[in-house]
Amino acid sequence: MSKVTAFITDGTEESECLIAVDLLRRAGIETELVSCNGTREILSSHQIKIVTDKTFEEASFEDSDMLFIPGGMPGVTNLTVHEGLAKVLKAQATADKYIAAVCAGPSVLGGLGLLQGKNATCFPGWEDKLTGANYTAAGVTVDGKILTGRGLGFSVDLALKMIEVLEGEEKALDIKGRIQHPETI
Amino acid sequence: MSKVTAFITDGTEESECLIAVDLLRRAGIETELVSCNGTREILSSHQIKIVTDKTFEEASFEDSDMLFIPGGMPGVTNLTVHEGLAKVLKAQATADKYIAAVCAGPSVLGGLGLLQGKNATCFPGWEDKLTGANYTAAGVTVDGKILTGRGLGFSVDLALKMIEVLEGEEKALDIKGRIQHPETI
Repeated sequence: MSKVTAFITDGTEESECLIAVDLLRRAGIETELVSCNGTREILSSHQIKIVTDKTFEEASFEDSDMLFIPGGMPGVTNLTVHEGLAKVLKAQATADKYIAAVCAGPSVLGGLGLLQGKNATCFPGWEDKLTGANYTAAGVTVDGKILTGRGLGFSVDLALKMIEVLEGEEKALDIKGRIQHPETI
Repeated sequence: MSKVTAFITDGTEESECLIAVDLLRRAGIETELVSCNGTREILSSHQIKIVTDKTFEEASFEDSDMLFIPGGMPGVTNLTVHEGLAKVLKAQATADKYIAAVCAGPSVLGGLGLLQGKNATCFPGWEDKLTGANYTAAGVTVDGKILTGRGLGFSVDLALKMIEVLEGEEKALDIKGRIQHPETI
């Protein structure tokens, strides 16, 4: 079974992060929610306190099949300046393993040079931060091991795509039906 | 400005609850997250710890323009047997003020007789619990002051409808565009 690490910090868009954790766990994927503010508790962009599974310092990442960067401000700014996270993301790319990001989150990858020559999407207005990428403006874009989403309105679809690449289309379609996705009713 | 109370407890579907809180707060609506397990911290249906604003015992409800019941199991069972919540929901209906619910959440209203003669939707399989209602099977249904949603796949659309009835269509469309709703791009 796959393992995903979802990062969260003060100012992260709570729905963008937790929709992914929710759907991945529904799919039976081990999903660890890891805080990047030095404590286990974070305050989201719309003032919801969430207690994570581990702090960044407590977690290990070598066994993560996918890392996930949600959006929200100032969450993305806080993730961008996190030196430990930058190292982990670069190691993940070097190992040719999956990275997913949504909304302003792909800018974190862009700043590290991880989107060079890749098709990618993000929240409109952030495309200049996708250094070297071909901005698709799509709802969800997959290019190799990089998955990107445009914003909260596509968080469910991005999560389903994360499930699909890790566990197959059948599993993703099963979850899509069970959550009453508008395309299934 | 309107006020909404969103209820949450152990086993509540976290995304169904927090998507509503997220979008309502984006719309500038005062939204209080209230726990129904006697403590401020709850453990959601997919094992996420959330620290609420207030316990049920700490909160007041007379000034709430809308009450919101999310789904998830065993969250809905826990909400169904909460006697204080039942009283608050009945008082809200008697005062002809808004109540919204999603997924299995509408069954809580059905059990209290609050859906008699109303059009309502819910997660498929729970329709027998909507006592006296006309089950629509729609994604989102509004009938008078009762708003219901079918499941997580319609949580964003239900939240937008909650904003629309409280603050008008223009505000709802503004939020719909800002979150990159698939129908807007």
